Amino acid sequence: MTRVRLDLNISLDGFATTTDQTPENPFGDDWGRLTAAYVATRTFRRRVLHDESGSGTTGVDDAYAARYFEGVGAEIMGAGMFGLHLHGDDPQWRGWWEDEPPFEVPVFVLTHRERPPIEMANGTVFHFVQGPAAAVLERAIDAAGGADVRIGGGARTAREFLREGLVDDLHVGISPVILGDGIRLWDDLRGWERDYEATSEAAPDGVMHLTFRRRPRD
Amino acid sequence: MTRVRLDLNISLDGFATTTDQTPENPFGDDWGRLTAAYVATRTFRRRVLHDESGSGTTGVDDAYAARYFEGVGAEIMGAGMFGLHLHGDDPQWRGWWEDEPPFEVPVFVLTHRERPPIEMANGTVFHFVQGPAAAVLERAIDAAGGADVRIGGGARTAREFLREGLVDDLHVGISPVILGDGIRLWDDLRGWERDYEATSEAAPDGVMHLTFRRRPRD
Repeated sequence: MTRVRLDLNISLDGFATTTDQTPENPFGDDWGRLTAAYVATRTFRRRVLHDESGSGTTGVDDAYAARYFEGVGAEIMGAGMFGLHLHGDDPQWRGWWEDEPPFEVPVFVLTHRERPPIEMANGTVFHFVQGPAAAVLERAIDAAGGADVRIGGGARTAREFLREGLVDDLHVGISPVILGDGIRLWDDLRGWERDYEATSEAAPDGVMHLTFRRRPRD
Repeated sequence: MTRVRLDLNISLDGFATTTDQTPENPFGDDWGRLTAAYVATRTFRRRVLHDESGSGTTGVDDAYAARYFEGVGAEIMGAGMFGLHLHGDDPQWRGWWEDEPPFEVPVFVLTHRERPPIEMANGTVFHFVQGPAAAVLERAIDAAGGADVRIGGGARTAREFLREGLVDDLHVGISPVILGDGIRLWDDLRGWERDYEATSEAAPDGVMHLTFRRRPRD
């Protein structure tokens, strides 16, 4: 049975985005602090950075990183995550990930612009599709062929799928940092958790891993 | 060495207060959901409800509840937590806790009104004092005689002491519920965590216990 999964790193104060980008420091420092535990994992290093040396952490954080990639048959992401807000006018733009994006499955990029699909060598195919969210999800579920669909982000896309009740499994890695500003993941979601079973696990670096799993309907 | 401690239950979205009180349900349901794990502990049942039967949970949540009461020599709380916002005009008001408040130490209640101190049988003495926070803290440190000082709450008092950098140890029990409204503990505290070491621990009920401990100064 396909499950719809969402996986994000958020700050202690609930922000899924950062705001300290400058022209000199285009990612800012906060993004690094928010994702430090994930980026340090062996799984991230292998899957995203193509580092096959076996370096990286192998503890609790890595177990969640590994699960992030397991059993996913299709991905949905917002236009901003693919880079269209900055590079949408460039017909050659193929995303941030160069020749080997870490997805290795069909990826549905939500955008109002028509773009031809982009097929990469490693199984990743970017399809550019228009919402609504539920309709795109149906396409992604078809494409996943029984495997799971992951909502990749960014924050606005994640919130849309959460608000519409489309997510079965939510995992957040909560970093013990206070960002003070950004897009709050939990806004307007009062009581959202009532249909879910919550479990939590702590990593030695202070990161808290919280998982909500939708309860079977009676 | 006295440490200044703060201990709160907050929601996943960072609220330290609830907003669903009605005349028919004066505490609301959310407060119960926010504090359920703490209230279920053996320590809470013994110390606050004077239940000596040994009933209550004895796991991770209880370990934090026990620590809450250990080694505290004085407490500071806001006027609202003592009940002065509702009962300040009643000179007979002695707080919510009847004859045996769970504090058993001097308690400094922040208020602009002059009130004579109230001495209870079990070592609890309520002193009514005016800020600023740092000056009240000095009095409480004196009264604690080398033991710790706990900032008891409520949310506004907690935030004031955090903002002024007066807290050495902060423990929050983060319940996996989304409240959507209230007083946010983390507002205006961007970067507050930089002087602290964070550790986290998960309870089987999904509550995440996060502790910030101030790093020794070089």
